[in-house]
Order: sequence, then structure tokens, then C-alpha cells
Amino acid sequence: MLRIAIIGAGRIGVVHARSVLAHPGAALAVVADPDLAAAQRLAETSPGARAVSDAAEVFAAPDVDAVIIGSPTRFHVPQILAALDAGQAVLVEKPVELDMARLDECLEAAGERANRVMVGFNRRFDPSLAQVYTRVQAGEIGPLQQLTITSRDPAPPPEAYLAGSGGIFRDMTIHDFDMARHLLGEIASVHAVGVSTRPETAAAGDFDQAVTTLTGVDGGVATIINSRQSATGYDQRLEAFGPLGSLEVGNATPTLVRANGAGGSGMADPYLHFFLERYAAAYSAELDSFLTSVDTGVNPGPTMLDGRKALELANAATESATTGMPVNLDAGATRPGARSSA
Amino acid sequence: MLRIAIIGAGRIGVVHARSVLAHPGAALAVVADPDLAAAQRLAETSPGARAVSDAAEVFAAPDVDAVIIGSPTRFHVPQILAALDAGQAVLVEKPVELDMARLDECLEAAGERANRVMVGFNRRFDPSLAQVYTRVQAGEIGPLQQLTITSRDPAPPPEAYLAGSGGIFRDMTIHDFDMARHLLGEIASVHAVGVSTRPETAAAGDFDQAVTTLTGVDGGVATIINSRQSATGYDQRLEAFGPLGSLEVGNATPTLVRANGAGGSGMADPYLHFFLERYAAAYSAELDSFLTSVDTGVNPGPTMLDGRKALELANAATESATTGMPVNLDAGATRPGARSSA
Amino acid sequence: MLRIAIIGAGRIGVVHARSVLAHPGAALAVVADPDLAAAQRLAETSPGARAVSDAAEVFAAPDVDAVIIGSPTRFHVPQILAALDAGQAVLVEKPVELDMARLDECLEAAGERANRVMVGFNRRFDPSLAQVYTRVQAGEIGPLQQLTITSRDPAPPPEAYLAGSGGIFRDMTIHDFDMARHLLGEIASVHAVGVSTRPETAAAGDFDQAVTTLTGVDGGVATIINSRQSATGYDQRLEAFGPLGSLEVGNATPTLVRANGAGGSGMADPYLHFFLERYAAAYSAELDSFLTSVDTGVNPGPTMLDGRKALELANAATESATTGMPVNLDAGATRPGARSSA
Amino acid sequence: MLRIAIIGAGRIGVVHARSVLAHPGAALAVVADPDLAAAQRLAETSPGARAVSDAAEVFAAPDVDAVIIGSPTRFHVPQILAALDAGQAVLVEKPVELDMARLDECLEAAGERANRVMVGFNRRFDPSLAQVYTRVQAGEIGPLQQLTITSRDPAPPPEAYLAGSGGIFRDMTIHDFDMARHLLGEIASVHAVGVSTRPETAAAGDFDQAVTTLTGVDGGVATIINSRQSATGYDQRLEAFGPLGSLEVGNATPTLVRANGAGGSGMADPYLHFFLERYAAAYSAELDSFLTSVDTGVNPGPTMLDGRKALELANAATESATTGMPVNLDAGATRPGARSSA
Repeated sequence: MLRIAIIGAGRIGVVHARSVLAHPGAALAVVADPDLAAAQRLAETSPGARAVSDAAEVFAAPDVDAVIIGSPTRFHVPQILAALDAGQAVLVEKPVELDMARLDECLEAAGERANRVMVGFNRRFDPSLAQVYTRVQAGEIGPLQQLTITSRDPAPPPEAYLAGSGGIFRDMTIHDFDMARHLLGEIASVHAVGVSTRPETAAAGDFDQAVTTLTGVDGGVATIINSRQSATGYDQRLEAFGPLGSLEVGNATPTLVRANGAGGSGMADPYLHFFLERYAAAYSAELDSFLTSVDTGVNPGPTMLDGRKALELANAATESATTGMPVNLDAGATRPGARSSA
Repeated sequence: MLRIAIIGAGRIGVVHARSVLAHPGAALAVVADPDLAAAQRLAETSPGARAVSDAAEVFAAPDVDAVIIGSPTRFHVPQILAALDAGQAVLVEKPVELDMARLDECLEAAGERANRVMVGFNRRFDPSLAQVYTRVQAGEIGPLQQLTITSRDPAPPPEAYLAGSGGIFRDMTIHDFDMARHLLGEIASVHAVGVSTRPETAAAGDFDQAVTTLTGVDGGVATIINSRQSATGYDQRLEAFGPLGSLEVGNATPTLVRANGAGGSGMADPYLHFFLERYAAAYSAELDSFLTSVDTGVNPGPTMLDGRKALELANAATESATTGMPVNLDAGATRPGARSSA
Repeated sequence: MLRIAIIGAGRIGVVHARSVLAHPGAALAVVADPDLAAAQRLAETSPGARAVSDAAEVFAAPDVDAVIIGSPTRFHVPQILAALDAGQAVLVEKPVELDMARLDECLEAAGERANRVMVGFNRRFDPSLAQVYTRVQAGEIGPLQQLTITSRDPAPPPEAYLAGSGGIFRDMTIHDFDMARHLLGEIASVHAVGVSTRPETAAAGDFDQAVTTLTGVDGGVATIINSRQSATGYDQRLEAFGPLGSLEVGNATPTLVRANGAGGSGMADPYLHFFLERYAAAYSAELDSFLTSVDTGVNPGPTMLDGRKALELANAATESATTGMPVNLDAGATRPGARSSA
Repeated sequence: MLRIAIIGAGRIGVVHARSVLAHPGAALAVVADPDLAAAQRLAETSPGARAVSDAAEVFAAPDVDAVIIGSPTRFHVPQILAALDAGQAVLVEKPVELDMARLDECLEAAGERANRVMVGFNRRFDPSLAQVYTRVQAGEIGPLQQLTITSRDPAPPPEAYLAGSGGIFRDMTIHDFDMARHLLGEIASVHAVGVSTRPETAAAGDFDQAVTTLTGVDGGVATIINSRQSATGYDQRLEAFGPLGSLEVGNATPTLVRANGAGGSGMADPYLHFFLERYAAAYSAELDSFLTSVDTGVNPGPTMLDGRKALELANAATESATTGMPVNLDAGATRPGARSSA
């Protein structure tokens, strides 16, 4: 039974607490949040858990095997390192860090212990997306040639959130960058177009819509279509296309009901509202994978290096959308079994 | 080039004229209708065609190889026999005849020449339904166990039409009876429930909704769900189920557009309005099959005997819906390769 | 916090234990099963729960507010009454009882306390089916005219199970009978066709496929299509049709993936395997409704009377499928707002 | 009755001849093709049509009101001008011309008579795509923000065809460029990534896959995903997204059959094979629109100027895919009612 601490009692902390509660191999030991009342409310939902206001108590606790970090991004790096110093494994929410230099310092300080850190790119664990990955790897569609990801949030985040978000590419598209790399391998070049449809977004120097094209070192091309607003709900689709066919993941709806009438046919519910609903199963599977990696010492990823690569793509996309020019990356190793492409 | 006469310049005559015009192997020679103006309007759409008011002129014409009979049902039998006497092949609209005794007289009078008569159960020629037939015959789902047909018209016919229609089972369900026999083989027993939701229907001693259960001599069961009214349009679905899987035919819509918005997702157009739209391709394929049968002398059906069997089922269903009791049929030969069933 | 006992540590007991564990308003106190080891294994998954081998200990326990009865059907009646005598509320699995006389004795003995018993027709709580119910009640499709339920199990149950099952109508279709009544109101007449495709089924005097037609006292007609075997998995569909349109519930698949290739397009996973997967959310919602009814003293159903009505339909269907004749029921009160129908 | 000449008896000439035959307001008068036998074969399918080997005879013919030009691209410009000089209206296949200078000379020489030339961007007339256009114009989804077009051919064209095709952007994507402009308005900037997956393509200096991003002057962004090969058939999809929702056009299949079995559920046919099948209705509607424009003298487009704009985008995409840099266009007038966008 692995004893877990959760740092950050906000929305994502609640999700992780629920996954821990439902998992037979884990127990929640500590919840840490400067807002002690919030920490207490969350701790109360798990028998045996206690609340603290200072994350330092987590790292000093003798009864914590692993830490799930869901604090604001700027605290991630020191908390990762403190946990590692305390011998605790880490699951850290995305993005790991917005500043590349600080992230590199973290990686250097962590050294080989970086292997004990898993990054919360939850979508890799979604049953549908994971099945696409497995089937692509198995060669069902041949080498992946065109990957198309549509990712639209139901509604823009509050202005206060936007200010510290690092911009749409580092905050939102970063999930899609990780998924693109996961499926397509390393990326050679990034081109992005950003659009600000709302004055608030423009005022913040940010975009609320974006189309990003990633050219893989193996010749595949990924297209990512983002919007901060979607009337029908959380729009999460993916298509993997190769010479033998394609695999598509469509949207999920709360029920299976379809209505037919004089006005039209086949009308389903709007999509599941947002990531908590759409990726509920993914969060559970993510925790399970994390616990297994803690047990076995083998980290199947996403690793801190994956987090760094995603940030690199986000930085490149930000630059491209700002300058209008594509950005070439100094892409390193390619995925195993990569095809040559003219 | 086969020379065709069409008897009846109404809605269905227009459909057949259009098919003849588009077919490279046929030419329309005569259109006959007591309403000569209607016959002329239709004849004008085909270069070389002439209009007559008396069907007798068709049977006397030296330049007519085959006759398509789309006149009111009560004229079918004499016109079939007159055409056969004139050496002309016949495609006759359904139902061939509402009175079983008259139909039997027709069959007797026709004798071996009945082979030159094809009955217009157009749905057998629909590309989707024909594909289901072929795949069922090929064994894809194993022996057919459960057949479910949903068949709903967009709106009730005019009262005047109802009066001479023979009732819902002989007028509307007769298509489904033929399809059920086509797929399932001979029928041993019929149970039907009829409902009159409209006072006009009740006044006519008819039903406007019906659910019919057919038990096949081979153990398969067909369910037919009918309504004379459907808000979403012509509702035409079929499911063939067997031990290895199922084959479904869904509804067709005028376009491929699907709309998503705050109110719901995936909304398509209403269904194609009615049989002229839904079965446009079937009518063309039916004509092509008829012309081939005229050329080759081989009649693949539906034959007059198929028309008789469908009428037998319609009569049994009418009786069952009226008495509330199932009706057993003296079913004859079974389909080839029928399985035994406990 | 309501303290729950579960009688029966089998498959369905495990489902309920999991729902209790996840519910913030309930705690599992006791698990009873003659197989004490099984009871212990289940009790261990819930902190604070104990295992007993004799259900009598449940009724004697001072710390049990409500009992979930998942024992074999023949134990249901005495256990219901013992629980009621102990002042405990009851959620009993379906069918409540296979023998109508015994069920009536139970109802009489329970008297007004029958209000404290809820019957486990879990499908009423499925989010999709519940939404259809709500929208039909709200008048979206007008008065319900035709209800079509397809319900096919993935594979036949073991022979040993079949022997005590009461036959397909009492064991399997009973869910559909409850759903039909729930949506359509009281039933006036039942016609059923049963087929035995497997020698084992025929030997047991049972059917493994069935088509049942229910005529409602309000003029609506329900069709239920059952099979004990379905290659594609648990096939659970429903269509509610009225003058203004229709509402359909389709099948659920484990993922949202669709594959396209040279062989075809749009291929999804097989359906969710069986009821534990398909109705997982329904079981949770059922427990929640039960707990609310215990708290408030208001039982929204399904009640024991609903259980009795479903058994009555199952008995009628069994008789009809055996004799080939429809069975008329002495149907009582109709649903509020029923339309008159010719 | 408008008298039509068709120049070019190849695949597309056959399509147009069939549309003319089926249209009540037009008659085929002449078919011209240097391959006289091919012209004769096509002329024979239309009563009253004659075949000639020299297109000059078309322009000299007194009985030709309008010309449909389906000859190789390099002949388009002189044939357009000759027809206009002869007072004949023109429907010319895409691309009008591959060389911008020659196209401009054509436009200049045509002058006001350019209004009598319609360009064969057939997709504008597809019922599904036309419905999307109408609904977008009507404001159903609000101002169009993101347009995504997937367009994949079933198999690469022959090498001989490739050589004179002008490259993927001018030959294939040009349809998508026109559709993007049609829906989104004028384009400010083009970025394209081209990939050669086949040695033949690379040898020809061409690409067989491409992803193009178009930034509209009004702030909308269009993404076009192309491939010369698609295992499932002709892949033609479009999504129009705005603040109020989205409209999607999916793929068409030859039948409505869906198969379910142990291996999966919902499998439909592969997509309609290619453009002749997928856009059959579009070709008919295109002819109808052309005939109406000849009758009324009002040309609703696509005009030669639309053809020029599409070529401009194709040239820009070719440059971008070659250099890796985006290309800015000197975009002129915007669509009416354009929104301002940050």
C-alpha cells in the first residue's frame, strides 16, 4: 500500500484524491495547501488522511512514499527537488515549468533521479487515445503520415488565470504537443498561427485560437487546431492517418440518446463538458501507471524530458505565431523503426 | 433496344419513365392513361414516345416489347393477361391484386407465361437491402435468426386513397412481407397488432400503426413495425441478426451535414422524405433487372408467386389484427439450406 | 451515514459493495454469505465491514439501517420480511420471486411496509434510459406510440443457472417488461414467440430467443426482441416513437475509436461486454436513489408492486410462447394523461 | 432548350454529357475530340449529337449556345476566347490555366465577356457543402473562425498525368483553395508543408501529401489536409467552426449497411471511390446553375476571377512548401459583413 501526499487542494487535487481513494494499492496520507481549510475538506474525504498548510511538512513526513504535485506551476521545480531529496517519487501536473532555464536546472539537479518523476500528461492514459497509440505502434495503418488533433475548451479561463498561464501554447496546446510527439516521434519544425478573437486575450498578448503544424523528423506531419471556446463543449478529437487506413477518436457525450424529429435526425447531447468529465478514466489510469512505476522503478513516461520537449514545442509555437515564421528545432534521436521519407 | 409502354401516368409512372429514359437499353414507346393530357405530358419527356388514352392500344401496338403497369390495382389482372396475350413482358406495381381468388385466376390463366411477369417490390433492388441479402446468403452472420424491419411513412395517404387501399397490411406492409420472405424464407405463422390513432383510419376500419410478428418455418422470427406517420420523414430501417453478428440498414438523409452547438451534437437532416427519394436507385436497378429478364427469359423475381405469398401474409395479418389471434399458414417449401431448429 | 448490509457475496454483491464504498452517504457494515470466505473477501475491500455466514445475523445486527439482497431468488421473500421486521429498508435484486402466490403472500405480510422495499430494476437508473423517460414524460415526442427494446446477452448462462432461472421471460426479459411498463404504462395484452436455437435450452423447456409484443391499455405497443447470445457483445437498445419524433438509445463501446481501411469505414469496438460494464453508472445511481428513499421515506420505485407487475408480464409471455395464443391481462389503472385511442 | 457542345470526350466529358442528357433544358449538339472515335462513342449516347475531331468546328457551329471545355489544361485559354468570340457561353474545367501570365492575358482579352465564363469548381454545388455555405452565411455558427478541409484521393494519378499537372497544389488542392475562399473570404497569408512519400513524386519535384494553413484577412484560419492516397477511398470532409457551433460534412458510402460482429461494431462500406461517385449530384447541380446563368446572364460563380484567386493560392502554397516560408498575399476586398478581429 503506497502512501500518497497531494500538494494543492484545488480542482486537480480533488481528482487525484478520488483516484487514490478508489485505488486498492494506495492510501492518501497528507494533503498540503496554504489554504488549510481546503486541505482539510479534501483530507476528510479519505479515512486516515491529514491536512497541512506547508508543503515542507510533506517532504519531512516519514509516511509518504510518493507525492502528487498539483500546486501552481511556479512551485513545481522546488517541490520536485524537495520530494526527490526526501526519497519520494513524484507525479507532477503539466506544465512542469514555464521557464526553460529553470526546467533545465531542475533536470540537472535531479540527475538520474529524474527517472522517479512522472509528468501529468493525462491524455496518454485515455483508453481511446491509448488504443490508437497501441494500434499505430502495431502497424495497423502503416507508418503514421498525418496526425490531426482538434482540441477546444468549452470556455476561456478567467483573466487572472490567463496572466500566469504562459500563453495558449504552453498552457493548453502543451497537451497536444505531447500527444503529437508520443504518436509521431520527434519534431523538426513548427509553424503556428495564433488568433485573438477576444479583446481580453489580445490585451494579455495571448491568442485564444491557434493552428499549429508540426513536421516530424520522419516525414509525418501533425496539425493541431485549438480554441479556448467551443459552444458544444470540450471538443477533443484525433485522427491518425497512414497508408493502410486511419484511426479516429471522436467526442464523448454524457448519454447514448439520439433524438429525431421534424427538425432533424440523430441529435445527441452536447459533448462532455470539460477535461474532468472527458478524461475521468484517464486520470485513474494515470495514477495506476504512476503507482506501478513507483513499485517497479521503471518509468514508462511521460518523463520530465517529455515535459521539456513539450515546452520546447510550445516555445517554438509561441515564437512562430508571434513572428509569422516557422521555427526549426534541433531535433535529436528519432523514434525506433522510423521510415525514411523523400 | 427494348421498347417499353407505361400504363398509368401518375407518380409511379413518372418514376419508371425517368428510369427508362436513363437506361441505354430501353426506349419509351407509349404512355397510356385515361387522362390523355397526363399521358401526353409524360410522353413529351421522352423523344419518340406517344400518348394514348386506352390501354388496349398498348396491347395492340406492334412496337412494344414490354409493359410497365402502374394503373390502379383493380386493373392489374386484366392488363397483365392482355399483355401476355400480346407477347409482351410485364413489370407490374404492387400489390398485384387485393383479391386472392382473382389473383389465383390470373396465375392460372397466365400458366407458364407467369414467368414473364415481374412484380414491383422495388426494395429488393435497393443497394443497401440487396447488399444485406447477399451477405446473409453468403453466411456472414450465420443463419438468420431475428429480422427487424421498421417502416414508417412520413404522412398518411389521402382518405380517398385509403378507401381502395386494402388496408395497411395489403397496401404498406406488403413491401415488408416480401422483404421478410426474401430474407427469412417461408412463414409459418403471423401475429399482428393494429392500432388506429386517427379517427379517419378507424372510420375506414383500418389501422395506421401495426406491429407484426412472423415466425419462419426455419425458426427465424421477423418483426415489422409500421406507422403511417413519421415526423422525421420516411423511416426505413432493417436489422438482420444471426449467431455471428448483425447487419443493419439505417436511414438516409439528403445531405451529409451534421450540426453541433450548445443544444446538442451530431444533428443531421431529417430522413429522405418518401419512397421516391429513398428508393430512387432501387427503381433504376429494378428496371435494369426487368430488362435483363426480358432479354434472357430468366425471371429472378419477385414473381407473381412472390406477389401471391405477400398477399397471403397481408391477409393473415389483417385477420390477426382484427381477431387478436395468430394465424397459421400452410407454408410449403423452405429455402435451400435451411437449418433445423428446436 | 447509512449502514448497509449486503446479503450475497456473488457478482452482484461485489457491484453493490463498490457502489457503497464510493458513496459518501453510506458505509458497508456487514456482508453475509454461506460461503464465509467469499463474504470475507468482499468485506475486506471496505474498511470497517465484517463478514458473517448466516443472513440471520444481519437482521439481528443493531448497526444495519438497510439491506441489499443479492441472494438466490428463492431466499428473497423470507429475507425481505425478516429485514422489514428488523426495521431495515430493503433493496432486493430482480426477480423478487418466481412464484406469484409466494410474492403475493410477501406483499400481504409486508403490508404498508412494502413501501420500504425497492426492487433492483437497475436500467431505470441508466443515464441514457432515464433521460428518455424524462423527455417522453415532458412530451417531446408526444404520446408514446411504439416502443422497441432490443436486449441480447453476450452468451448463454451456464446450464445450472438456467435450471433455476424461471425461463428467459422471468429471468432476462423481466428487465424489459419493467422498462416497457415504466415508459408505456399498464399492459392489456401479451403475445410472445419463443425459439430454442440450442439443444440445451430446448431440453430445459426454455427458449433462448424471444420476440414479445405488449399492447398497452392506452394504445401504445411495445416490442421486445431478446437473445441469449450476441456475437458483438451486450446489445441494449431502445427506441421510443411518437407523433412528434423518436428518441433512441444505442449501444456503448469501451472506447471512442473508429477505424477506417480498405475493408470498410467507421468500425468501432464491439459493445461493452455485459451488464456490469454497460450499467455501471446505473448501479451507482440506483444505490443513490435507494439511500435517498431510505432517508426521506419516499419510495419512487421500482417498488414490489412493480416487481409483481413485471412477473405478471413474464408469466403471460411464458404462457403465450408455450401455447401460441395471446394472453389478455386484467390491467388496472392507466398512466396519468393517457390519450384515448381508437 | 440550350444547345451544348462538349470539348473533350474523356472522363469528365462523359460526366457532363450524362448531366446534359438528364437535364430537361439542354440538348447535346456536338462532341469534339482529336480522338474522333471517342467523340463518336460519346455522341452516340445522346440522340441528335454529332462528333467532330476539331474544336474549331464547335466555335463555327451555328447551333451551339454554350460550350463545356474539358480538354487538357493548356488548351483552355484559346478555347475560352474562341467560344466567347463565337458568342458562346463557357463552362471550363479547373484549373483554368496553370500559368498566371497567360490567365491574365485571357482575362484581359475576355474583358466584360469574362462574365459569360463559369469555372468547374464542382464542389460548390455539392448539396452537403452548399448547405454548409448557406448555413454559415445565415449566421448559424457565428462568424467562421476555423475551417478544416480533409481531401484525400484514393490513389495517385499516373506518372504521365503528374508531369503536366502543375503539382499537387495547382492540380488537387485548388478545389480546396476555392472552397476555403468561398467560405472564409479573401486570404492574407499561406503556409504549406509538402511531403513526398513516393519516389516517383519526389522525382517529379512534386509532393503527394500536404498540409496548408490559410489565414483569412478577416481573422479566420483554414487548414487543408491533402493526400494523393487513401486506403478507405475518396476522403472528403469539411468542418466549419464558429463561436456558436460547428457544421461538419462527413464521408459518403455506397450503401447504408453497417455490420456488427465479434471483431467490432458499426462497420460501413469504404467511402465512395472517387470524385465521379462522390460528386455526381454536384455535377448535375453545376450544369443546372450554368444553364441558368446562360439564360439569365447572371453569373453567380465560380468565375474566372475565382479561378485566378485559386491559382494564386496554389502558387503561394507551392512556393511556401518549397521554401519553408509563409507567403503573404496582397489580399484585396473582404467578404461582406466581415468581422474585425484582434
